[in-house]
Amino acid sequence: MDLKQRIDQAIRNVPDFPKEGIMFKDITPVLENADLSADIIKEFAAKIEGKVDAIAGIESRGFLFGFPVAVQLGIPFILIRKKGKLPYKTVSHKYDLEYGSAEIEMHVDTITPGMKVLVHDDLLATGGTAVAASELITKQGGSVAGFSFLVELAFLEGAEKLKLYSDKITSLVSY
Amino acid sequence: MDLKQRIDQAIRNVPDFPKEGIMFKDITPVLENADLSADIIKEFAAKIEGKVDAIAGIESRGFLFGFPVAVQLGIPFILIRKKGKLPYKTVSHKYDLEYGSAEIEMHVDTITPGMKVLVHDDLLATGGTAVAASELITKQGGSVAGFSFLVELAFLEGAEKLKLYSDKITSLVSY
Repeated sequence: MDLKQRIDQAIRNVPDFPKEGIMFKDITPVLENADLSADIIKEFAAKIEGKVDAIAGIESRGFLFGFPVAVQLGIPFILIRKKGKLPYKTVSHKYDLEYGSAEIEMHVDTITPGMKVLVHDDLLATGGTAVAASELITKQGGSVAGFSFLVELAFLEGAEKLKLYSDKITSLVSY
Repeated sequence: MDLKQRIDQAIRNVPDFPKEGIMFKDITPVLENADLSADIIKEFAAKIEGKVDAIAGIESRGFLFGFPVAVQLGIPFILIRKKGKLPYKTVSHKYDLEYGSAEIEMHVDTITPGMKVLVHDDLLATGGTAVAASELITKQGGSVAGFSFLVELAFLEGAEKLKLYSDKITSLVSY
């Protein structure tokens, strides 16, 4: 079985979460399988090695694979968190959701001009948060080296929102 | 410099966060140092190797070091999250805070009877969440193999609350 099939078999489909009509892709069984997780870390690392100066992981499931991949490549890992969670001075970016809005932040001293930063999250859904993360990076003079996701919900067309970076999106499985 | 000194030098002290009078230990500069992070993962792994069947990481900074340590040791990583975040059936535990209460959860099918589970978080403060995590584990028939923290705020005496497990607490730096 290839990696994609192994991930697909490990993911649990949970109906009606977080709300009715949504089939949630639960990655927790992947995390409970250390061999599979090790191979996922290797695969992400192989895909971006040499092309990226830092990885920015989106709270909180983006911390899971983002951090070990950064450690393996010997590059910094940067936290992107919801407003109010980071203790030091931050830059923030507000964006619209289906209902209401959200705001994400990054510490001010993490990105140096021209730094090539990969945005990592576990899931690409509508792409709103990923776009906001890219804005945070460019706002500080960094360049967006691409995006990586464990799972892409292709039917939600999040990749459309990231079309500026269309050749730089890695999703290990897509539905 | 030994590992403890390197961690201590990397941590940033942020005054008055999350509220006035508190000196916050900011670990984000540690995450931006891949060599240091790799050595921390090795150290945590060496301290628990052979003694632990699974690691449970507390949302969200407990995901950072907890997951790569589990992957390195070839054991499952289990998410402990705030109420409402896990998609599948959960067991939960409610506990008191200084003001109000909090509730944490774990998926029901993660712990098998007798499983030795280590609880990991970035910081041991008053110990309330760590105790609640241990309750979640024993409630399901697991045994608490110990606790690991990157940072312990010893003056808050969290270890007192964990005294049942006093010989099984690993903190890499202590203040």
